[in-house]
Amino acid sequence: MASTSSLSLSNSLLARSVSHHAPASHSSDHRPAASSSSPAQIPIAALRRRFLQRQIRAAAIETLAPAETSLVDNSVNTIRFLAVDAVENANSGHPGLPMGCAPMGHVLYDEFIKFNPKNPYWFNRDRFVLSAGHGCMLQYALLHLAGYDSCKLEDLKSFRQWGSKTPGHPENFETPGVEVTTGPLGQGIANAVGLALAEKHLAARFNKPDCEIVDHYTYCILGDGCQMEGVAHEACSLAGHWGLGKLIALYDDNHISIDGDTEIAFTEDVSKRFEALGWHVIWVKNGNNGYDEIRAAIKEAKSVKDKPTMIKITTTIGYGSPNKSNSYAVHGSALGAKEVDATRKFLGWPHEPFHVPDDVKKHWSRHIPEGASLESEWNEKFAAYEQKYKEEADVLKSIITGELPAGWEKALPNTPEERNIRFGVREHGMGAICNGIARHCPGMIPYCATFFVFTDYMRAAIRISALSQSRVIYVMTHDSIGLGEDGPTHQPIEHLASFRAMPNVLMLRPADGNETSGAYRVAILNKKRPSVLALSRQKVPLIAGTSIEGVEKGGYIVSDNSSDNKPDVILMGTGTELELAVEAAHELRKEGKAVRVVSLVSWELFGEQSAEYKESVLPEDVTARVSIEAASTFGWERMVGSKGKAIGIDSFGASAPAPVLYKELGITAQAVIAAAKELC
Amino acid sequence: MASTSSLSLSNSLLARSVSHHAPASHSSDHRPAASSSSPAQIPIAALRRRFLQRQIRAAAIETLAPAETSLVDNSVNTIRFLAVDAVENANSGHPGLPMGCAPMGHVLYDEFIKFNPKNPYWFNRDRFVLSAGHGCMLQYALLHLAGYDSCKLEDLKSFRQWGSKTPGHPENFETPGVEVTTGPLGQGIANAVGLALAEKHLAARFNKPDCEIVDHYTYCILGDGCQMEGVAHEACSLAGHWGLGKLIALYDDNHISIDGDTEIAFTEDVSKRFEALGWHVIWVKNGNNGYDEIRAAIKEAKSVKDKPTMIKITTTIGYGSPNKSNSYAVHGSALGAKEVDATRKFLGWPHEPFHVPDDVKKHWSRHIPEGASLESEWNEKFAAYEQKYKEEADVLKSIITGELPAGWEKALPNTPEERNIRFGVREHGMGAICNGIARHCPGMIPYCATFFVFTDYMRAAIRISALSQSRVIYVMTHDSIGLGEDGPTHQPIEHLASFRAMPNVLMLRPADGNETSGAYRVAILNKKRPSVLALSRQKVPLIAGTSIEGVEKGGYIVSDNSSDNKPDVILMGTGTELELAVEAAHELRKEGKAVRVVSLVSWELFGEQSAEYKESVLPEDVTARVSIEAASTFGWERMVGSKGKAIGIDSFGASAPAPVLYKELGITAQAVIAAAKELC
Repeated sequence: MASTSSLSLSNSLLARSVSHHAPASHSSDHRPAASSSSPAQIPIAALRRRFLQRQIRAAAIETLAPAETSLVDNSVNTIRFLAVDAVENANSGHPGLPMGCAPMGHVLYDEFIKFNPKNPYWFNRDRFVLSAGHGCMLQYALLHLAGYDSCKLEDLKSFRQWGSKTPGHPENFETPGVEVTTGPLGQGIANAVGLALAEKHLAARFNKPDCEIVDHYTYCILGDGCQMEGVAHEACSLAGHWGLGKLIALYDDNHISIDGDTEIAFTEDVSKRFEALGWHVIWVKNGNNGYDEIRAAIKEAKSVKDKPTMIKITTTIGYGSPNKSNSYAVHGSALGAKEVDATRKFLGWPHEPFHVPDDVKKHWSRHIPEGASLESEWNEKFAAYEQKYKEEADVLKSIITGELPAGWEKALPNTPEERNIRFGVREHGMGAICNGIARHCPGMIPYCATFFVFTDYMRAAIRISALSQSRVIYVMTHDSIGLGEDGPTHQPIEHLASFRAMPNVLMLRPADGNETSGAYRVAILNKKRPSVLALSRQKVPLIAGTSIEGVEKGGYIVSDNSSDNKPDVILMGTGTELELAVEAAHELRKEGKAVRVVSLVSWELFGEQSAEYKESVLPEDVTARVSIEAASTFGWERMVGSKGKAIGIDSFGASAPAPVLYKELGITAQAVIAAAKELC
Repeated sequence: MASTSSLSLSNSLLARSVSHHAPASHSSDHRPAASSSSPAQIPIAALRRRFLQRQIRAAAIETLAPAETSLVDNSVNTIRFLAVDAVENANSGHPGLPMGCAPMGHVLYDEFIKFNPKNPYWFNRDRFVLSAGHGCMLQYALLHLAGYDSCKLEDLKSFRQWGSKTPGHPENFETPGVEVTTGPLGQGIANAVGLALAEKHLAARFNKPDCEIVDHYTYCILGDGCQMEGVAHEACSLAGHWGLGKLIALYDDNHISIDGDTEIAFTEDVSKRFEALGWHVIWVKNGNNGYDEIRAAIKEAKSVKDKPTMIKITTTIGYGSPNKSNSYAVHGSALGAKEVDATRKFLGWPHEPFHVPDDVKKHWSRHIPEGASLESEWNEKFAAYEQKYKEEADVLKSIITGELPAGWEKALPNTPEERNIRFGVREHGMGAICNGIARHCPGMIPYCATFFVFTDYMRAAIRISALSQSRVIYVMTHDSIGLGEDGPTHQPIEHLASFRAMPNVLMLRPADGNETSGAYRVAILNKKRPSVLALSRQKVPLIAGTSIEGVEKGGYIVSDNSSDNKPDVILMGTGTELELAVEAAHELRKEGKAVRVVSLVSWELFGEQSAEYKESVLPEDVTARVSIEAASTFGWERMVGSKGKAIGIDSFGASAPAPVLYKELGITAQAVIAAAKELC
């Protein structure tokens, strides 16, 4: 079983930093004492501990003046109530996370993240990912305060409604300011690894001693649910391996997941695990209102250059709700009018729903001019860079805009040298990281590779590529029983059908070199959907009649000896079995039949052609149709019709040499000939 | 996002042992010095270290007498060369792992694992899983020496050939003595967690202070590839949480994966990570011939009762091959005649291929009588248990044999209380653990639950259920856009089609309470395949005409006002949309049409009915057919034919209340009526 991947990243990434920081003095492997059910009740011992800690760490922490603290409190409560009110309005959503994470959210967006709210796509912005996507009202509230046009008050009021910009989980294609699509847990942190990797790659490629033209951080908030998912672990292991120093993950350690207390299923020592993965780990014990500690931790994280940092921030889920905080009741449902009232009282928030106090508005309003300045400063920097390093600047521009350089087609198939990443055996992490890379900027085109059967391991990531309109190219080899001796665990059967059924994916199964070039071309030109290329293990000859142009139509005539669009029989195939259809046609023609051979390399592209074109390839009146594909016949009725015959494999494969398998499982030209003779 | 699971395991499992052993003195977080390319060259410093270590640990280690050592050497080399010769014979396979792991394999099978070779299914046997399934020749060689009938010399000689009992990866359904199907990396260790969990559950349920009637260990060999996979991590996190003291994993730390040195992609501190997961960790530094250390480590592991143990065993992949050991060249290809010769010379093995020396044969031959004794002793124990605890013994017997207790149907749907396991948010681990539970013995019927869309996370495990003929019941809820506001990340579209295309899976989408009962009945009665039940989030009314018997046929007539099997139109639906078909039929009948409504709850079961039955439900001559399903239309041509119309959703969903989504996406009775009117 293999997973390797080739993508547009330079070798510089492969060099892992060797020197490691010693763990910071205030990192710790121990969990805090069990938190009490009301956020107001903090054990005396804990208070004392915190006080002592502050004494010890005073030098490292900038503390706020009281007036500032009250403003931050106001801002944090604004975030909390925007979330509470929007969820209440929709009577649907997850208030718990935004209420608990509002403090870290405020500190991040107001004090650290570099962005330009009026141009959410400014290239050198810091990237933020809410991996715990169910808490999206946190992000929408922050985007609102920060001045993004996608999250105006009316958008927050239409949270989770048809046609709104504020769907139930963050979706990059709906909400400018949202970088990636999250919700399926664990994906977001893996996307963040991809974003940070893209930054590191571009920085290594384009930065000069006198000009760091690529220079941003990637921040991520993730929860217990993300921590439990294998995909997150895979990606975090790689992030540690790659030493992604500009990746900063804030772990909302709230001890509650949808099922109840995390103690029922999640008792591992997360901090120690991340140390084992090569991360720098910091623990902020008071995430509910320890603004100073949060700030100090992020500063420390930024100063650690050779390792990603995990800041474990202990919070109370649903902080502020007197009766529901610190319980799963606040995880995924509206609080209810009564509890909202109680929460307003508890937090001293007398305002009507969706209220943003004037001081908070005023405070946040600076981000619009500041963001504009950040971008224009960077633009000036880029202009200077361009003057000095014209060639690099041109390439970088094409990456930023996503315009393909002239003559790119001549490079097909790409040469992967110098930009290879080794993912180890971590398919799911690989897919999710590629999503992050693809979403970093329009010109990054990641392609990754493993055995086709192991798309099963990464299917959730491929689905996110499709949904989030991300151009990831999945180069999937060993695409059938042709794999041979490794046997049924390694032989795809249902995979072609399973991707043909998935929306917004191009499933391509080229038959030879021509079609493979065509498939790469199509994959690169489709900027808003991923492509899955199923490639064989077997050697394949060039087939007369195949073409790049044919691939672009998805289905086309490879050979034909009929006239008037009335063949006696149409034979269809894909990939390595197209050759069998050609062979069968040859025999049938010898017997005087008018036979058309059709390659159906991509059903999606064929489906998008005009009715006339489709009729010219598969005329409705010709019902004698035979298909052959070394895979499940599921779905082939679409092509062969009610009277046709689909030859395929509707059981698992077996361990034996490939030619034996083809023969024993009936994937032969003889089978095509026999079927055709029954029909015409 | 949720994953919870209910299955046949007692609450006793939920109590996690709290006391933890201190790490053993010889566990370590550090990697060994880089191993030299030739196995003969061991740095002096390493030798000295090892000597000192042995001095220190002498008391804890039983050392072998020289004669015994030579016998073990012979046995280990026999295993190595059986693997080398079989791979050479097939010109296909993975010699590297068996050559490196032969010492641990010998010690495990010859000295620790309790089995009866002439009854591979003896209930109380120790379970062994080769998670690094590509190294299956190790297992076949061991089963051969141990006297299993499935691995006779002729079976080894037909390794990886059509119809043989020795396929390219271990398959429980082909080879008695193989417990689970492995090869897709990470699955095996997760299966082992499931096997150990099943043992712990049954022990908790049936053991008595005076009689431990369930009492076996679960051993697993896994490699670097397994360690990288997220599914392994998820399962190991749970194993630590559950404190599975009788799970012993031997980690083949050979520093080489298919891509080359693990340093290129895998530099985490595995030992420290497992400590963080709550495992006991031991490091055996000389896995190549440190028989004494291996033995001592397994003994220590057995003595640790409240934690699973990970024994990291540093080996040289392809040990003995002078030119290919310690490189990826030996991972997955035959050595080639020349290198086989060199290896024979290096290891002092002058024999012809497939030779088993007499002393080795004689030594291993004791396992046949010993295994028989083990089983008969246990049978006597069980007889005594039965006399004293008749009721428990009867239940245990039904679990061992897999015969369902009388009256089991009355309990449908099952009451899950008392046997719930919380998996946290670890779908992939959950599925793979359930595979292990299902394979523990015929009467264990695990069912597990999450949102239908998150089958994407566990698809690789579901495929293994199907391939390995394991009765796991996947209860998948929130099965469509009916989920509503959570939006497209949480709304399945292509999932029904993707499972209908997968071999040996029953995909069931019941429409109401009757059909749900029928679906559970079918799932339980199908002992050799998994079932996926797609259940709605929405409330559903009972539909007139649905039945348990109908579900057993997969497709059946729910209502009909036609005669002579000639309706004007056939309306079909599944799940929550069957109601829409019924509603549309009602309207169409008002207008005088003869309308048949068909439920297609399981396409696989319907496909297995006689041609006559199918014709009685979907007569060939009736081409006016309309289907409705809130999912991809992919594959529906099979049911509606070339002239029919499939109503469904071929894009992603959206975030909005469910009724709005149904209307906006056109999943309505009106759409069915309009389509029907076009056709008849």
